[in-house]
Amino acid sequence: MNPDHTHEVHCRSWVPGSTTHADFPLQNLPLGVLDESGGRIVVAIGDYALDVQAALHLQCLDDLACHEQHALHAHNLNDWMALDAHARRRIRHALFALLEHGNSAAQHGDRLLLDPRKHRMALPAHIGDYTDFYSGIHHAMKAGVLFRPDNPLLPNYKYLPIAYHGRASSIKVSGEPVCRPHGQVHTDEGPRLQPSARMDFELELAMWAGPGNALGDAIPLERAHEHIAGYGLFNDWSARDIQAWEYRPLGPFQGKNFASTVSPWIITADALVPFRRSAMARPADHPALMDYLNNERDQAQGGLDIQLEVSISTSTMRDRGLPACRLAQSHTSHLYWTPAQMLAQHTLGGCNLRPGDLMASGTISTPDHTGDGSLLEMTAGGVAPITLPSGEQRAFLHDGDEITLTAYCERPGGYRIGFGECRGRIICAAGRP
Amino acid sequence: MNPDHTHEVHCRSWVPGSTTHADFPLQNLPLGVLDESGGRIVVAIGDYALDVQAALHLQCLDDLACHEQHALHAHNLNDWMALDAHARRRIRHALFALLEHGNSAAQHGDRLLLDPRKHRMALPAHIGDYTDFYSGIHHAMKAGVLFRPDNPLLPNYKYLPIAYHGRASSIKVSGEPVCRPHGQVHTDEGPRLQPSARMDFELELAMWAGPGNALGDAIPLERAHEHIAGYGLFNDWSARDIQAWEYRPLGPFQGKNFASTVSPWIITADALVPFRRSAMARPADHPALMDYLNNERDQAQGGLDIQLEVSISTSTMRDRGLPACRLAQSHTSHLYWTPAQMLAQHTLGGCNLRPGDLMASGTISTPDHTGDGSLLEMTAGGVAPITLPSGEQRAFLHDGDEITLTAYCERPGGYRIGFGECRGRIICAAGRP
Repeated sequence: MNPDHTHEVHCRSWVPGSTTHADFPLQNLPLGVLDESGGRIVVAIGDYALDVQAALHLQCLDDLACHEQHALHAHNLNDWMALDAHARRRIRHALFALLEHGNSAAQHGDRLLLDPRKHRMALPAHIGDYTDFYSGIHHAMKAGVLFRPDNPLLPNYKYLPIAYHGRASSIKVSGEPVCRPHGQVHTDEGPRLQPSARMDFELELAMWAGPGNALGDAIPLERAHEHIAGYGLFNDWSARDIQAWEYRPLGPFQGKNFASTVSPWIITADALVPFRRSAMARPADHPALMDYLNNERDQAQGGLDIQLEVSISTSTMRDRGLPACRLAQSHTSHLYWTPAQMLAQHTLGGCNLRPGDLMASGTISTPDHTGDGSLLEMTAGGVAPITLPSGEQRAFLHDGDEITLTAYCERPGGYRIGFGECRGRIICAAGRP
Repeated sequence: MNPDHTHEVHCRSWVPGSTTHADFPLQNLPLGVLDESGGRIVVAIGDYALDVQAALHLQCLDDLACHEQHALHAHNLNDWMALDAHARRRIRHALFALLEHGNSAAQHGDRLLLDPRKHRMALPAHIGDYTDFYSGIHHAMKAGVLFRPDNPLLPNYKYLPIAYHGRASSIKVSGEPVCRPHGQVHTDEGPRLQPSARMDFELELAMWAGPGNALGDAIPLERAHEHIAGYGLFNDWSARDIQAWEYRPLGPFQGKNFASTVSPWIITADALVPFRRSAMARPADHPALMDYLNNERDQAQGGLDIQLEVSISTSTMRDRGLPACRLAQSHTSHLYWTPAQMLAQHTLGGCNLRPGDLMASGTISTPDHTGDGSLLEMTAGGVAPITLPSGEQRAFLHDGDEITLTAYCERPGGYRIGFGECRGRIICAAGRP
């Protein structure tokens, strides 16, 4: 099979709704897990979800090797992530063939296809460890200005991808409510315990680790891309008042660990191959990349061409039948570091990544204010509230506010690779101390 | 059964070597997991390890409820940790009865007892998330002086237990080698990639989470002690030069995530009941505890009376047949926050703890230099190397250096609760970028 076949624009599927303008055309084929029977692997296609287990039972995927089929029988995608890049690509090709127009599997459509609106999605994988990077340079700059007006970017920023470890247990899949946390905040009268009054979102790209490395073995930059199985969207909810009081000297903790939201569909690295782009151009006064972060191929095509959006819907807007309102439009070209550079840095000291580990990019903002990836930036730290079409003002999030992150790749005359939604609604923190 | 029976000094076991002066007398009964058959639960007793699965097969633990027996059949201790505090206590009583002098199980000694020297220990549990606190106030002060001479303790320190999330994947059990990490360090000529030249240890108490909480539900202070299943020792290896360059603004990452070492035996919370003590007295000029961190019972007996030690053995010392040399003696009374306060703080914002999550206390140092919990403190940041009995000097750790943490509780005329060892040897970082 021509390995580029799965990226051809003219290819069509027999599944209804899978046109090239939809989020999930034949060229996308993101994987997810239904929250039933302990977890069931599905593939988004058009308006439907392919039941992979049914496809295995119907022997539609018999060309796959035994261990590849086995990985798809699992209750989550960790075994799929543990496969090497070649095996994941063979699975993509097999799914593509199965769903391509003309395949005899179409006659089993009623057994193979599920209506995703009738099912809940689960987390796509068991997340061993979660790491949050800080690679959106405009966010780092704009958020840094609020804390350190004279020195927004710390000296290390341009030398290495900065990151910290986050909480894996509290990562929930899109659609789960987000409970406003209680915590200590600093006031003019001293620290006080209260529900956070400065709840914020952060627009981030999620990166799912592939096979990973043994403890002590670094993954060099030129192999790093093989170890990212796929991508998604990540909302790194932040309680700015809790974070501001707690974060020195050891970094964010309870300002973040009350909840994070990840999108349910894993957009495979293979689906994004046509949407690779060059890494961010480094201005002349920025330091040269060190050798271990410098690779011609990664500089030429290690970046990603993904459009990002954030929208908000308040309870008032929903009561009045108003649609969600777009807050920001950003793009992955604003990442200072490529995914491969982030992963190479992560393993540089020998830290082991395991299949299903989740990395997030850090907030991705544009240089101007049209693409602020957080309210912190949009409202200049809360002092300049924004006004929504409903007339409501927001400095930070109110209970009932729902934030939805979306993303897509598209070229004129081409097809669209949609990411689906990463959605969460703030609910009131009930009855804590 | 008298619930205090398991703490009586005169009680004796039929197992050889289990005298009250040994680390593992009948009153201790720590749980661990052998690294074989996928993991096998054992209990340390004297010079032996009780094979719990054998005890179940021999129907020596038939008084336990079915789900309690089931938890002991598992390949790790996560199911045991998930039990409520009453069930864990019933298991303790059953094990105590089984191993007490006069029990008929003694006749099956050869089937029940294993020689731990012939077996490797595994990690006692699957660690979902790992959190590192900063509750050793003298360490926070002494390390803080090195970074911020005028302002060693940041303003938040006395108001809440500070913590950050660490890396779970790279936590290894005692005895595993520790690979010196490569990383970026800052030099007078700018940042450089090299193996860390400032490798350090950190003496910490490990706390293993019990049943935990659902996301969004805080565990109040008065229930927090039920959610700590047991304790151990933790070496939070640190690459000070990597850490110093990377840690702002988001905290430690690669300065820590290359490896951590935990001791294999879980000293149960029940075994430590007689060694509870009052919380650290708060000086008059320290702020009063907020209500959610203030509980009469916790202040009276939420602390722990554990002696801590660090020793070093270099390859030169081993070559010359010299014994390991003690570097520090410290004590858990130097923790500014009790374990219950740390756990209550951790869940305050609704962050969910899961059975097997690991919390570490932060480095526990004495106010003076006899009990420095790290070389950073002992050598004033590396400028005043210490001299070992072999004549060797150490500012930071060399390849081949082995650090061992030990701990015990003991009262005059009483018995000893030993923690076993938390041991790791630095090995050379091979062939990275």
